[in-house]
Amino acid sequence: MTDASILTARRATLRARLAALGVDRGTVAFPGNGESPMNYRDNAYPFRQDSSFLYFFGLSRPDLAAAIELESGHSAVYGDEGDLDDIIWTGPLPSLASAAEAAGIGTVKPRAAFAPDLGKAGTAHWLPPYRADTLHELAAALGMAPDAVNSSASLPLVKAIVGMREIKDDAEVAELEKAVGITVAMHKAALAAAKPGMTEAAVAAIVTREAISGGGGLSFPVIATTRGAILHNHDHSRVLAEGGLFLLDAGAETVSGYAGDLTTTFPIGRRFDSRQREIYDIVLSAGEAGCAAAKPGRPFLEAHLAAARAIAVGLASLGIMRGDPDDAVAAGAHALFFPHGLGHQLGLDVHDMENLGERHVGYDGAGRSEQFGLSALRLGKALKPGMVHTVEPGIYFIPELIARWKSERKFETYIDYAAVDRYAGVGGVRNEVNRLVTAVGGRTLGPAFDKSAAAIEAARG
Amino acid sequence: MTDASILTARRATLRARLAALGVDRGTVAFPGNGESPMNYRDNAYPFRQDSSFLYFFGLSRPDLAAAIELESGHSAVYGDEGDLDDIIWTGPLPSLASAAEAAGIGTVKPRAAFAPDLGKAGTAHWLPPYRADTLHELAAALGMAPDAVNSSASLPLVKAIVGMREIKDDAEVAELEKAVGITVAMHKAALAAAKPGMTEAAVAAIVTREAISGGGGLSFPVIATTRGAILHNHDHSRVLAEGGLFLLDAGAETVSGYAGDLTTTFPIGRRFDSRQREIYDIVLSAGEAGCAAAKPGRPFLEAHLAAARAIAVGLASLGIMRGDPDDAVAAGAHALFFPHGLGHQLGLDVHDMENLGERHVGYDGAGRSEQFGLSALRLGKALKPGMVHTVEPGIYFIPELIARWKSERKFETYIDYAAVDRYAGVGGVRNEVNRLVTAVGGRTLGPAFDKSAAAIEAARG
Repeated sequence: MTDASILTARRATLRARLAALGVDRGTVAFPGNGESPMNYRDNAYPFRQDSSFLYFFGLSRPDLAAAIELESGHSAVYGDEGDLDDIIWTGPLPSLASAAEAAGIGTVKPRAAFAPDLGKAGTAHWLPPYRADTLHELAAALGMAPDAVNSSASLPLVKAIVGMREIKDDAEVAELEKAVGITVAMHKAALAAAKPGMTEAAVAAIVTREAISGGGGLSFPVIATTRGAILHNHDHSRVLAEGGLFLLDAGAETVSGYAGDLTTTFPIGRRFDSRQREIYDIVLSAGEAGCAAAKPGRPFLEAHLAAARAIAVGLASLGIMRGDPDDAVAAGAHALFFPHGLGHQLGLDVHDMENLGERHVGYDGAGRSEQFGLSALRLGKALKPGMVHTVEPGIYFIPELIARWKSERKFETYIDYAAVDRYAGVGGVRNEVNRLVTAVGGRTLGPAFDKSAAAIEAARG
Repeated sequence: MTDASILTARRATLRARLAALGVDRGTVAFPGNGESPMNYRDNAYPFRQDSSFLYFFGLSRPDLAAAIELESGHSAVYGDEGDLDDIIWTGPLPSLASAAEAAGIGTVKPRAAFAPDLGKAGTAHWLPPYRADTLHELAAALGMAPDAVNSSASLPLVKAIVGMREIKDDAEVAELEKAVGITVAMHKAALAAAKPGMTEAAVAAIVTREAISGGGGLSFPVIATTRGAILHNHDHSRVLAEGGLFLLDAGAETVSGYAGDLTTTFPIGRRFDSRQREIYDIVLSAGEAGCAAAKPGRPFLEAHLAAARAIAVGLASLGIMRGDPDDAVAAGAHALFFPHGLGHQLGLDVHDMENLGERHVGYDGAGRSEQFGLSALRLGKALKPGMVHTVEPGIYFIPELIARWKSERKFETYIDYAAVDRYAGVGGVRNEVNRLVTAVGGRTLGPAFDKSAAAIEAARG
């Protein structure tokens, strides 16, 4: 668990930031997560504490809540101690009182007191809930309709927390290095083991094994697919066939909750074929362009556009795109091949703070562009030292999307659909790294992992 | 997916059984499961459909609901077709209309129509919800307080479904054989790979890999522990040390949702020490006694008591217990060592139908005994051919429980606490098999898996 001194300082900073935003009265409510039932109440998914709860209170056990009184700065945690029955079933745990003390919290109250205390608070502040049990507990405690709980969530609280959590301190960077380290091991295990004839599930299994061996688990459901052109493909029923590409997008979560998130694309056989290799190299160059442009003080949108430009230039060299690459990118023609964003923040969540609302996490209060492609960019705002984000360009040949654009004769100035058809068999290629914004630029987190086509082919040999 | 003919027949049988229970009007509502958010809405745990929904409608995709009109017997499924955006992110899926047709359901309505249709139904019947989103959707649709949704769930519906799901047909037995087969592979992989110096997490990882390679996943969170005396221990942070025992309780779920559930206990080194071996052999004998007594027409409570008696007799042979074993078991003295039940039903849920309420799943409407030990027996009622259940006796030396009983001088007639202390280092031993009740007795599901101490030691060699 994070040290009491760090947790206490974070809570004090939150109070100061809220005061600076004009919020200095009332109670900030943090309902922790409960168990999440799978197919009956007591068969629960692996417990995951809410990330803001972890960040401010450190305690990772189900059925807690916490509150900060803004006038006094006093913190309390709400939860119940186990009895002998719990000890038989789950073993002796440190008492909640001692765990709370280790988190710098002096007051422990019964869990059932949380809702009444919240109801009594003159003013309450809360984050938008993302779990149904939390939503309805808050609704009942606050005497509100569930929809109103979301629409009345505290904007200053969101802003204050985003401003804190998006700048990672040294201990957090060390945890993220660890997460990316386990994630690299996951990807290297897949590179070493994937063979024609295996199922996608068998590769997902190898990758999952590495994540769990790391002591934590997966930071998000594994994408392990022979059909990389499907962006979030969690079906793992296909068999790996010689000649195709394999796309792995998977990450580990450390015991303390920090996430890694890498994507690797590799040939199912030993070598890329020539078209696969051409597309692969363009994706690598787009990643380099994106990393070079991701600098403190500059909007991440620029990095996205730099990667998009590299894709347009690269595809033009193959005859797939044409015309002025800047015009093509401005028009959004490249998004046929790169329909998603270049990256997102990374931290206690793999899409860090996504539950706080992308408007603030990704755009400082502004909205996303509505242009196809840019509309999927989760992060657009200016970077600051200490931010951690992904860079993950891709090129995909998505049959349904190509068919629609072709039938609409869309962007024919920039796209040669006959050439597109010649590359359709490549499917999808994505490459992803995790980056820390430094004072002068950025650096890639985790151990060295050479993604050059030659290194990938050597790893597959 | 299960064949349309089977699904259609099941829905017709349900209607007939309800009619036999006097329920022949109104709508039976089956809200399917949605995605279950982990740390933000779009980072969801692996999707798991509700088991009764699977049993009657076969469709395993999120955000569906279904209904059966009892007057007409007409079934409808509620859900929404994907658009091009969904295709880009998740790939082309069969349309909901065609999937519903494959499940023998002619009517597909928008998901949003479920609640209004339910509100309009003269009478509605539903199962007790176990997920918060389902509970609150039903509460809103029915115009009820959430607590009332649970207390007003339909008892005839519970009884009718328990009566159907607890008798497995041939196709279900084949799926369960498959689940147990993958589960045996999980346990054999752990037996082959676990070594002193590894973490519990590394063993859990190996076991999880086998489950995922099978195409489905885990049927419940893995118990992989050096502290077997903690019954549901999901902490995996300890390191395996020579001389101790390792307890693995883990199972696979097939793609179609059927569960395996086995427990194996083995030495972390190559051989059991003499005390471990003595306890291990008693647990095996208790399992044999339990299996022999689990017969059609006989209450499973008898099998539980037969296993308890074998434990009392065995522990008496070591001087740990004493006095008449039948009296000791009747008094509940053995429950210091065997504080849980002998088994539970197994099917689409690892504790099959636990969400329908144990009173009916395990006891034909009667309640559990309140005696410590028996109070944890999930299944007490008479067995019928086609039922599938576990047999999982164990002997544990639980320090906190021993300390309490010793201080209370509890059951000193039957327990020699000085001898107990000599065996405390054994920790916990459990052995579990999955059984099908046949016309004449029962048989163990899955491939051969010799659990004799000699075979286990050979596997560890």
